[in-house]
Amino acid sequence: MAHIQLTEGLPGIRGLFAFRPETAKPLCELAEVLLHTPGTLSMADRELIATYVSSRNECYYCQTSHGALAAYHLGGNEELVLDVKRNFESAAISEKLKALLAIAGKVQNSGRDVLPEDVERARGLGATDQEIHDTVLIAAAFCMYNRYVDGLATFAPSDPAGYRQRAAHVGENGYLGIPAML
Amino acid sequence: MAHIQLTEGLPGIRGLFAFRPETAKPLCELAEVLLHTPGTLSMADRELIATYVSSRNECYYCQTSHGALAAYHLGGNEELVLDVKRNFESAAISEKLKALLAIAGKVQNSGRDVLPEDVERARGLGATDQEIHDTVLIAAAFCMYNRYVDGLATFAPSDPAGYRQRAAHVGENGYLGIPAML
Repeated sequence: MAHIQLTEGLPGIRGLFAFRPETAKPLCELAEVLLHTPGTLSMADRELIATYVSSRNECYYCQTSHGALAAYHLGGNEELVLDVKRNFESAAISEKLKALLAIAGKVQNSGRDVLPEDVERARGLGATDQEIHDTVLIAAAFCMYNRYVDGLATFAPSDPAGYRQRAAHVGENGYLGIPAML
Repeated sequence: MAHIQLTEGLPGIRGLFAFRPETAKPLCELAEVLLHTPGTLSMADRELIATYVSSRNECYYCQTSHGALAAYHLGGNEELVLDVKRNFESAAISEKLKALLAIAGKVQNSGRDVLPEDVERARGLGATDQEIHDTVLIAAAFCMYNRYVDGLATFAPSDPAGYRQRAAHVGENGYLGIPAML
């Protein structure tokens, strides 16, 4: 049971968006800019960073919903998403994405853990300043979303079908429309 | 030196806002709703929660800038802000705020640390569902802002006078105008 009274049947962060629309708006806008606005990092790469950080924070709802979104953008490749969560250094992803995931993993513990050599590794593999910026902010933002969802003890369904269905909708339409759909 | 190329002379998160205005907008809107919009928790209480979490995350820039904001809303009482950071249970604040700070401290480590009894303590001292919600989200949001500021190794001035001056401006005018001022 959640720590506060939420609308029944709205899982994870969706119940919180319905409870407090004033904060739902900037939270969805931030997700839209970071994860769904066209950029030099693919949407799959950005959702993989979000999934990996959520997995390190042991947030079931976020790692499952964003894992489903990453798989959606990867044409349904759920195995690759699991590989990234288990050990991204041996996963079938680009060397640049591995360097960005290494930075994201450090941010998950503390921003102060990111060292100049972590950034140099990414830059040497072609990462731009904006890609490094966005990686740090995606990782930091999921340290927020994960704590928000779990700190209020929201409900997380266990059936993967629901996550796949919602991922197809958000993967197509983005994050901005979520609050209005609730 | 910051990990990416930022405008010189803009400390902490301000350099990042200037670098990426698209994310500055929702980040400032979230701070405005959580910290500066009229509510049943005073602005001083909310800035104290932000300061306490930033202190636990050892983020010098955020704990100093929001500590200065808390002091501004407390009529200049910088000693009380230090007391809250050192040991809030013995500080001269309300029992309700102590219970909310205890929740915030748990969220700083992990959302999953918040137990029903932590929420019951706050509720027994008069905290509403929205106050509990906002406490969790303020704590979660500063786990983001702190990692963002430190993960990109931004510059933090050491002179307290500059923080006091900016706190007076933000305390009066709020967060929404910050990006346009840079």
